[in-house]
Amino acid sequence: MGTRSARIVWYTAMSMDGRLATADNDLGFLDTIGDRGDAGRGEWDAFVAEIDGVIIGATTLRWLLDGGHSWPHDDLPTWLVSHDTSLPARVGPTRAPLHRVEGDLTGMLDQIEAAGLSRVWLCGGGAVAGQLLALDAVDEVIATVAPTALGNGPALFEHQNLSLPRFGLVECRPAGGDAARLVWHRRDT
Amino acid sequence: MGTRSARIVWYTAMSMDGRLATADNDLGFLDTIGDRGDAGRGEWDAFVAEIDGVIIGATTLRWLLDGGHSWPHDDLPTWLVSHDTSLPARVGPTRAPLHRVEGDLTGMLDQIEAAGLSRVWLCGGGAVAGQLLALDAVDEVIATVAPTALGNGPALFEHQNLSLPRFGLVECRPAGGDAARLVWHRRDT
Repeated sequence: MGTRSARIVWYTAMSMDGRLATADNDLGFLDTIGDRGDAGRGEWDAFVAEIDGVIIGATTLRWLLDGGHSWPHDDLPTWLVSHDTSLPARVGPTRAPLHRVEGDLTGMLDQIEAAGLSRVWLCGGGAVAGQLLALDAVDEVIATVAPTALGNGPALFEHQNLSLPRFGLVECRPAGGDAARLVWHRRDT
Repeated sequence: MGTRSARIVWYTAMSMDGRLATADNDLGFLDTIGDRGDAGRGEWDAFVAEIDGVIIGATTLRWLLDGGHSWPHDDLPTWLVSHDTSLPARVGPTRAPLHRVEGDLTGMLDQIEAAGLSRVWLCGGGAVAGQLLALDAVDEVIATVAPTALGNGPALFEHQNLSLPRFGLVECRPAGGDAARLVWHRRDT
């Protein structure tokens, strides 16, 4: 992926044991992440201001829609990783294109590159993250680690065959309340 | 567990995605944790010098024995969590008692308390850690987070029914090379 210019950023929260949710998609653990007040909000706003595209998996999108939300980043070109051909219709009209992709994600990476994007948010979930990591296409991981454990559920990366991808630690600090913020960047090998 | 005086400390290494090993018990990811030299060794020595007992699960012990190791902490009273009645014999003679326990771990906690221990190392694995966490009996988590992901395998805690146990973040810092060190203490609730 060294020749690609778009950076893919996996920005998420996880539990101490690396889970993104319980096995039945409960995200209640997010409440254990302390209120970071304006600092936390400013950080998130700054992150969102810099992205120009989004990748989202079917489980994450369905979770949003089932919760009565619309797709909040419909102003950004979005790649939906899903075998479910009916899912885009559930999102409804979007200001920027919503692309559905499935199978090997190399084609999606080519589309992102062709679109001239520079910073794309991978907003979930672990299976899509695992697929992208296997393609050596996760450039940054920004994880807020909650001060609790789930014991089950999908983790930060889900894949059956990774070959110890290497990252460099860029940031490691308390992040409001008892959470920790860890930032890694992909190492060129 | 507020009335117990022995502290149970879950000290381990894990991948970015919270795994302790791959699904087939490969621990090769440990090589991605930078050599911390004398500082790292001193830290480990200081930790071991303070423990007066050990809890170990069957998978972790078998991994050691299968690798040709003996039980390196046989000078400390050890509780082996295993249904396998033949496993203690594989360890051979020990200087301090090796107790095999199975099922509900409340009895083991009572034995540890009755033995007057003060600081017990839970040395693995995730299933035993999950059982102890469900009993609200994990007092400290000291995790070195490796700068790589596994994508599969047992995580820091494995349990089907935890109720968002709360921890306080005590330490969060780079730990040699690109690893991170996170320390949490159980919060009294």
